[in-house]
Amino acid sequence: MIENFHAVIPAGGAGTRLWPLSRAARPKFLLDLTGSGRTLLQQTWDRLEPLVGASNIHIVTGPGHAAAVAQQLPDLAPANLLVEPSPRDSMAAIGLAAAVIERANPGAVIGSFAADHVIHDDEGFRSSVTQAVAAAVAGKVCTIGITATRPSTSFGYIEAGDQLDLDAAPDAREVTRFVEKPDEDTARGYVETGHFWWNAGMFVMSAEVLLGHLADLHADMYVRLTAIAHAWTTDERKSLLDAQWPGLPKIAIDHAIAEPVAAVGGVAVVPGSFDWDDLGDFAALDALGDNAATPKDNVQLIDADGLVISTEGRAISVIGIPDVIVVDTGDALLVTTKEHAQRVKEAPAAWRARGRDDLT
Amino acid sequence: MIENFHAVIPAGGAGTRLWPLSRAARPKFLLDLTGSGRTLLQQTWDRLEPLVGASNIHIVTGPGHAAAVAQQLPDLAPANLLVEPSPRDSMAAIGLAAAVIERANPGAVIGSFAADHVIHDDEGFRSSVTQAVAAAVAGKVCTIGITATRPSTSFGYIEAGDQLDLDAAPDAREVTRFVEKPDEDTARGYVETGHFWWNAGMFVMSAEVLLGHLADLHADMYVRLTAIAHAWTTDERKSLLDAQWPGLPKIAIDHAIAEPVAAVGGVAVVPGSFDWDDLGDFAALDALGDNAATPKDNVQLIDADGLVISTEGRAISVIGIPDVIVVDTGDALLVTTKEHAQRVKEAPAAWRARGRDDLT
Repeated sequence: MIENFHAVIPAGGAGTRLWPLSRAARPKFLLDLTGSGRTLLQQTWDRLEPLVGASNIHIVTGPGHAAAVAQQLPDLAPANLLVEPSPRDSMAAIGLAAAVIERANPGAVIGSFAADHVIHDDEGFRSSVTQAVAAAVAGKVCTIGITATRPSTSFGYIEAGDQLDLDAAPDAREVTRFVEKPDEDTARGYVETGHFWWNAGMFVMSAEVLLGHLADLHADMYVRLTAIAHAWTTDERKSLLDAQWPGLPKIAIDHAIAEPVAAVGGVAVVPGSFDWDDLGDFAALDALGDNAATPKDNVQLIDADGLVISTEGRAISVIGIPDVIVVDTGDALLVTTKEHAQRVKEAPAAWRARGRDDLT
Repeated sequence: MIENFHAVIPAGGAGTRLWPLSRAARPKFLLDLTGSGRTLLQQTWDRLEPLVGASNIHIVTGPGHAAAVAQQLPDLAPANLLVEPSPRDSMAAIGLAAAVIERANPGAVIGSFAADHVIHDDEGFRSSVTQAVAAAVAGKVCTIGITATRPSTSFGYIEAGDQLDLDAAPDAREVTRFVEKPDEDTARGYVETGHFWWNAGMFVMSAEVLLGHLADLHADMYVRLTAIAHAWTTDERKSLLDAQWPGLPKIAIDHAIAEPVAAVGGVAVVPGSFDWDDLGDFAALDALGDNAATPKDNVQLIDADGLVISTEGRAISVIGIPDVIVVDTGDALLVTTKEHAQRVKEAPAAWRARGRDDLT
């Protein structure tokens, strides 16, 4: 365990590209998508608990998911379940957690990790996080870069510059810039240079450093979040949340902090050597290969291949469709192909447009 | 109504190309595939009842379907439900009905009509049947040909020769020959000549003429079937069925009677002008256009088209698959495309091979 290191897990996002498995009321992070017996949130907990200890894991989630999160994570301290009244993107979520943690644990280092990503190599992850904490102690906002194994257009990229020369973080390098999801030619160029890593949204920094950047760059957010944190353990929590939370802007930590701080040399990257997947769509889930949501006994592929999932145990026959995606749930069925995996989000949107919010 | 005219409806055949709608225990003829509120068997009844009267409709079916047939046709006389102990193809089924009907109604004309075909033009059908009965009274085995609207390779064909010059059957022509399902080039040739009609398995003839041909061509069948018919209304029925039925060969009336009799000039064809479909597969069901098994409210096609059926009322989204076929039932789901519609029978066969008879 790393001393006074705290994990923050923002647990939000509907995962509409994984509809109809993923729903507004049962989002991706609450699902066991890999057939491991543990949900993605539970796997995230299992990965972080040995590094920070159960009492140092904090979850930020919405009121609709708080009960499910508490139920899935029985060892989560009730005080560490931070319920945001409405979604305000990652800066507000992580900023609130940083302010609450810093008040209770001065000098804490925090690391934010998504609730719905998949990593198998726990040892590699631990090694990268350990170096990132060292860079954080040295005052950096430190991100962990993911080895770009292909010119993906689904992820943002981190460009790394010179080594930082930190004894406890020998792999850490300066971040030159963050770039948004590129087109394929650009992505290919990035990968060929060897200087670009995927941005998985993992940020490690001292809470004090983060709050300092926030005070400099987004003073209004800083004021609102520290006011809420000040009242967090008091009877005033709800009234402060009611008063301050709605006024917070919806902005990602990448744009709010990481990009502007990188521009002035304040961000480091530890290139991760571990595997990683964000399970962004069914093509990604299929590529992962360890989906076992459906017993293969119930699936019959005749001149067909792809991903077939049934939460109902229904017998499914597919004939003559390569790269098919079939996802069968109690009330909704999706049929498409891997080529269209990114378009799956159109389905719940179209149901909502027809007034079928029950399906979204 | 046509005097002493009896309809025989062989109700058999699993319709495995319509799996999973059609099952061994719930075959095609028992289903309402066109969304009319009436099953195919009931539609067949509705079409024939005005021509022959309810008391002259006879159904030949297996023991597994007798109860469902009786339940679907409350006006069917119990004595007119002929239960064959095991399937022996259409010659045995129609021959048994002919022998039973002839004993009770000497001089009867019988017409055999499949239980699972679709015809909308009742008036055109009635007109063709009326002419076919006249040809039957003149001693012919008479078939009703279906206008070949395309060079189908899914049907057998009837080649017509000269007009027969029958006053009451002005359209009746001699049948030169019956041909099996052709390849596409051959089919195109047939259609271009204008002398070929599809063979829908509709045969009209006097029972006495049919039994006479049977005695000539298949004496053993004749002996067995008339022995059973002789005992039909007695306590001996079951013992005769047990003794004689298993020895009957499995042969279609086309091969047993129609082809050899046509070769010696004994078969006539009345070219039908009515619409007809055998709903042989899901592509045919889709082409019919009046499938309404699924409320369209529950189906969402995004860059897709085709046939989507849910017996469960499940919401179904299809993205990016043209000509898709999705058939969703309680325990089984089929996903394919129209191109593969004829291969659907492979699915129940493969489930059976896996020991999943419950799905077939």
